[in-house]
Amino acid sequence: MSNHIYDIPSPAVIIDLDVAERNIYRVTNAAKKEGINLRPHIKTHKSVYLTKKLLEAGAKGITVAKISEAEVMIENGIDNILIAYPVLGKEKWERLRKLNRIAQIMTTVDSMEIANGLNEIGTKDYPINVLIEVDSGTHRCGVQPGNDFIKFALKVKEMEGIKIRGVFTYNGLIYGSKSLDEIKSHAEAEANLLKKCVEQLKDIGIEEPISSGGNTPITIALDKMKGVTEIRPGNFIFNDVTGLDLGVAEEKDCAIRILARVVSIPLPGHAAIDAGSKTLTSDTAARSPGFGYIVGMPDVKIVKLNEEHGLLKYDPDKRKLSIGQVIEIIPNHACVIPNLCDFIYGVRNGKIEKEIKIDARGKNY
Amino acid sequence: MSNHIYDIPSPAVIIDLDVAERNIYRVTNAAKKEGINLRPHIKTHKSVYLTKKLLEAGAKGITVAKISEAEVMIENGIDNILIAYPVLGKEKWERLRKLNRIAQIMTTVDSMEIANGLNEIGTKDYPINVLIEVDSGTHRCGVQPGNDFIKFALKVKEMEGIKIRGVFTYNGLIYGSKSLDEIKSHAEAEANLLKKCVEQLKDIGIEEPISSGGNTPITIALDKMKGVTEIRPGNFIFNDVTGLDLGVAEEKDCAIRILARVVSIPLPGHAAIDAGSKTLTSDTAARSPGFGYIVGMPDVKIVKLNEEHGLLKYDPDKRKLSIGQVIEIIPNHACVIPNLCDFIYGVRNGKIEKEIKIDARGKNY
Repeated sequence: MSNHIYDIPSPAVIIDLDVAERNIYRVTNAAKKEGINLRPHIKTHKSVYLTKKLLEAGAKGITVAKISEAEVMIENGIDNILIAYPVLGKEKWERLRKLNRIAQIMTTVDSMEIANGLNEIGTKDYPINVLIEVDSGTHRCGVQPGNDFIKFALKVKEMEGIKIRGVFTYNGLIYGSKSLDEIKSHAEAEANLLKKCVEQLKDIGIEEPISSGGNTPITIALDKMKGVTEIRPGNFIFNDVTGLDLGVAEEKDCAIRILARVVSIPLPGHAAIDAGSKTLTSDTAARSPGFGYIVGMPDVKIVKLNEEHGLLKYDPDKRKLSIGQVIEIIPNHACVIPNLCDFIYGVRNGKIEKEIKIDARGKNY
Repeated sequence: MSNHIYDIPSPAVIIDLDVAERNIYRVTNAAKKEGINLRPHIKTHKSVYLTKKLLEAGAKGITVAKISEAEVMIENGIDNILIAYPVLGKEKWERLRKLNRIAQIMTTVDSMEIANGLNEIGTKDYPINVLIEVDSGTHRCGVQPGNDFIKFALKVKEMEGIKIRGVFTYNGLIYGSKSLDEIKSHAEAEANLLKKCVEQLKDIGIEEPISSGGNTPITIALDKMKGVTEIRPGNFIFNDVTGLDLGVAEEKDCAIRILARVVSIPLPGHAAIDAGSKTLTSDTAARSPGFGYIVGMPDVKIVKLNEEHGLLKYDPDKRKLSIGQVIEIIPNHACVIPNLCDFIYGVRNGKIEKEIKIDARGKNY
């Protein structure tokens, strides 16, 4: 096999390394400029190789969602990890206890059930470091701001096995923004909430509280996050149609492409490609209909997915497609794509440079 | 770890083996009764173990979508395989050539580009066995019925490297059925088309043509498919919300469950579970809103998925949920679930009997 990308058997996921590295440096530098630590979420790529690239560029640690992701990263020598998820159940607490002895681990907590579990596995010498999760409006996880937050923090503070390190939030509402101004005001509101919680934590005696927030949209409004201590964006390394829709990335910033081939043209204006929902996923984007953007062919739409077929529609008077033709798709949501692969292709100038292993593929438990 | 399912770390995919085996025998026997060969699609489970169960029960061979799935099955001793997909490109043709020497392989063809490729790799002694794909209205793949079909078959018939074995169709439109009568009339129309194509193939000298169609909905209307030689359902082994919506399965027929736990209750009536889009996928069902059906809790809806969070809504005055509570979810679309796992749990009477390896996980290329 030649190492030209168009010789790769399709479907395949390719990453333009130049673009990914530029994305890494943009966000690393933007965070540095505002004095905010970058703790990128590795859910997007789930790869040790790209995690190390992020750390080399200046990230201060990483974020994972699941304890199984943390296990993979620790096995590979990455030792500053926030498990940004409620770690629940005896089996997981035991795994967390072990990780906490060998790496610098933090996790989040928002319920007494989980605080009690963490307290059981933490000791005075090896306390479980936690950020208290506060709900900034997404209603996904988190205690409510204000009295609930203070009361919960006070209870957790009494626990010898737990050390409160700060406050955590996730603002999913930002993805509904219709303009950069809306993104900025989400950033401002999130920063204000976090800073208020930090004051409340200081009031009850927590020293130098960490405030952890942010996501990829917020990376274009980091001046509004000034004073927050760390951000946890993930998607920015690749970008996707969701980012294009939000105006936080341009096509040239999209490092990830799904390479597919036209396999059938049953009728004029109808073509099938060899990438379906098991490659592109069924994730939709906020404003762009269909299942991904075909690079260079805004007139051709991916209107439906079966598991191994993507169905295209186009005007056959204006566009010719042919069997065997290679197309490149920017996915609606980059963070769900590498998880479906054993590896993705790292390319530079259209040539394969490296097969990047997806070390934490499927690690959701 | 005990072997009770509620001790499994979540999220996890569990399969009730009694139910799966009952599903296997229902369809095997129904096909036998109508004199139709069953060639189940293994995309649903991608497991050698369950493939062998299907063959033991009487399936006459298997269907796969991708050549990589065929490779896995052949490595595991399964040797009668239809690759129900246009196999395209030099690299794949070479792989197909090799498989064709060691197993009983058929594939589908609907374009001269692919016919020419297959002709190149087939020989008089080892011809590539093909079913000609005809479009029964889905416009996914296939030549158009009638003259286009005959003309295409005549051209392929001239090729020494290819042996036409019959006709193939996929009727995706059946999934839009709103009643059993609609399913039956889809079955009838599909059978009529296939039988007409068979006559046309006989007219040009193809002996004993195979006619291959069907899917899971059609398994409840097999009397309408009489005369068709083989069917290729996949989903029936597990069933899902799509099957419930269509009326082709009841809850007791759904062998697959996603086991998840409530990890956070940020506000009354809002809970988060530890299964998100990387476990449940974003696939929707025809008539049931949300992202899966929670067994025993029709009043609790999975309204949104993030990657590792499922967001539930319910009336807190009528329903209490608690942190740590285990729930079981019937997925919207069973065929995309095991593909996300290295293995799934085979259970019987609530106890783990076997870890079933997903041998062809991620094999989409």
